[in-house]
Amino acid sequence: MSRFLSERFFSLSPYVPGEQPQDRSYVKLNTNESPFPPSPRVAERLSAFEAEKLNLYSDPTAKELADAIVEFFNNDLVRRGEKKFFTRENVITGNGSDEILAFIFQAFCDHNKGMACPEVGYGCYPVYCSVQGIPLVSVPMTEDLGVDVAGFEGIKENITIANPNAQTGLYLSVSDIKTLLSENRSRLVVVDEAYVDFGAESVAPLIREFDNLIVVRTLSKSRQLAGGRIGFALASQELISDLEMMKYSFNPYNLNRLSILAGTEAMRDEEYFDCTRKQIIEIREESKAILADMGFCVTDSLANFILAKKVGIGGKELYLALKEKGVLVRFLSDKKLSDYVRITIGSKEQMTLLYQKIREVLKEKNL
Amino acid sequence: MSRFLSERFFSLSPYVPGEQPQDRSYVKLNTNESPFPPSPRVAERLSAFEAEKLNLYSDPTAKELADAIVEFFNNDLVRRGEKKFFTRENVITGNGSDEILAFIFQAFCDHNKGMACPEVGYGCYPVYCSVQGIPLVSVPMTEDLGVDVAGFEGIKENITIANPNAQTGLYLSVSDIKTLLSENRSRLVVVDEAYVDFGAESVAPLIREFDNLIVVRTLSKSRQLAGGRIGFALASQELISDLEMMKYSFNPYNLNRLSILAGTEAMRDEEYFDCTRKQIIEIREESKAILADMGFCVTDSLANFILAKKVGIGGKELYLALKEKGVLVRFLSDKKLSDYVRITIGSKEQMTLLYQKIREVLKEKNL
Repeated sequence: MSRFLSERFFSLSPYVPGEQPQDRSYVKLNTNESPFPPSPRVAERLSAFEAEKLNLYSDPTAKELADAIVEFFNNDLVRRGEKKFFTRENVITGNGSDEILAFIFQAFCDHNKGMACPEVGYGCYPVYCSVQGIPLVSVPMTEDLGVDVAGFEGIKENITIANPNAQTGLYLSVSDIKTLLSENRSRLVVVDEAYVDFGAESVAPLIREFDNLIVVRTLSKSRQLAGGRIGFALASQELISDLEMMKYSFNPYNLNRLSILAGTEAMRDEEYFDCTRKQIIEIREESKAILADMGFCVTDSLANFILAKKVGIGGKELYLALKEKGVLVRFLSDKKLSDYVRITIGSKEQMTLLYQKIREVLKEKNL
Repeated sequence: MSRFLSERFFSLSPYVPGEQPQDRSYVKLNTNESPFPPSPRVAERLSAFEAEKLNLYSDPTAKELADAIVEFFNNDLVRRGEKKFFTRENVITGNGSDEILAFIFQAFCDHNKGMACPEVGYGCYPVYCSVQGIPLVSVPMTEDLGVDVAGFEGIKENITIANPNAQTGLYLSVSDIKTLLSENRSRLVVVDEAYVDFGAESVAPLIREFDNLIVVRTLSKSRQLAGGRIGFALASQELISDLEMMKYSFNPYNLNRLSILAGTEAMRDEEYFDCTRKQIIEIREESKAILADMGFCVTDSLANFILAKKVGIGGKELYLALKEKGVLVRFLSDKKLSDYVRITIGSKEQMTLLYQKIREVLKEKNL
């Protein structure tokens, strides 16, 4: 710490990203990346890109990407037999959904207006509160690690929920979220749908009815662009306009030229998107069965990861044993989850190797 | 404005980027971009890049880029006959220098600790203060639009100075900055060197002596990567560690994979860097002479732009007349500068066209 740091940060604990060890090559199942490459259209577009143009600023409105996002969500409405609704004024794009979330916490909370989050969720939410001096209300989980909708009743804070949950993969139904939105019309409800594309249902269409809803999305998981750093939010024009004001007060050119192109193509290639997420879902459901067979208790995750625990071996113990065998999973420091490991759904080959290594560990420990 | 926006932003005025009109093609001399493409090594590296890898997160430490930056600044010391000094702990990289500057204002200022800036400077500084509730002290310029070093005497705030100045191109010498640093040892002095590579001298080596100095740099101007969004800061390990804490509390993966590669190659290609900046300097000095011949008063800029005014025609008038003829320059809303236009130094061809169009305008207005 330097002698210049503002006093308010003396006890700040920043977010710690999942480990990216450089010492050897691992089967990496620890940061919920996709095992598939991005759409071939991304590679095509990038290879046709003239690096010569990088001397010019990127479009601060990221129009091309925002248009592709609007089209995707309108196509979805049309497929349900409903009318197109979204326009570019309902979308803000950012340098990963992390940046968008930081803008949301900053714009709509302050030291008088706190944020309420489920006790177990995305690790960045408490950090945003801490760095921005926002009171955080942590709502306890249900017995079975679910989000307790009733726990948010009568709360005065804005609400942020990762749905599916970023640690458990468990999911609140659209009607649950609708209850939250109806009962909290004077509070903002932020639904972080980073993991929604693997079997859960999005609440994005509810933006038509609720001016207190913000839906946050990332292209890191189901669009295979974690390394491209692209996220976005959907909401009413008024909320988006407030968020744009944050962006233009912080980093007007927040997306670079290459990420705008990559993101645009990933949004447009709906066929590849559907095909890859279906494979993840298949492998996930298979993994639940296989791990249950081995005696694991596995959460009924709808995300691209699962939480698994087994009597006789702690989360940290299993994580360390697997790491030694070249497979990285995530050990969660949260007390409630210390029995579990979080396993990202990899390719069939990666998962087969994982099962084999887990069997070896269990045998070595006589479990 | 939505009904959810925090009260503290009710009167916020965000930064307004230079216009990027889409209606026709312009000779663009309004946002201080380089007229040259990036180093051919950038194009090579990007074309060899496998887009397949974008499914994996980027390195949150951007090690490869940070190492290239360290090497560049150490090479510079060695060329002066001095010892290598910089290590990776002296560098933080960001999504453009805008993000780095925002982290600096946030980390080291608060409502009790303000920021002092020259009255005329980079338009984002007052915005960072406004969005973060930081008191801004605006230090008046000297008669001839220079930064008034004496004006910072006895000031209690941290200090941020764009050097060369982002609007005038005028330059404070290393010894002036050294005076500021010595007289303000208990305050931070942030020197934003976005434009330093076009003939001015950097104060980066002073980091060895002064633990109250942060030097901010961008790859947008002299490295031709405005569209790649890459900036960095150099300072003591303690200051950098504070800034890293801001980054990990806001956006841990703040640089994408492609920008890390592009930035690394741009830093490494010192030959291309020298060759292109020398050309900009030559064209700038020629432009000063040509515009003076036409009766313009031109600032003695050491940046990749000049400020020019002529009796009989206001800044806005000249800007509009040139825009109509297909040349974009920047009209500055600051009262002190309303007689001027800011002209980015373009290629020889672009500048020849500019001179021709200015001559046409002057003729039409009988000047």
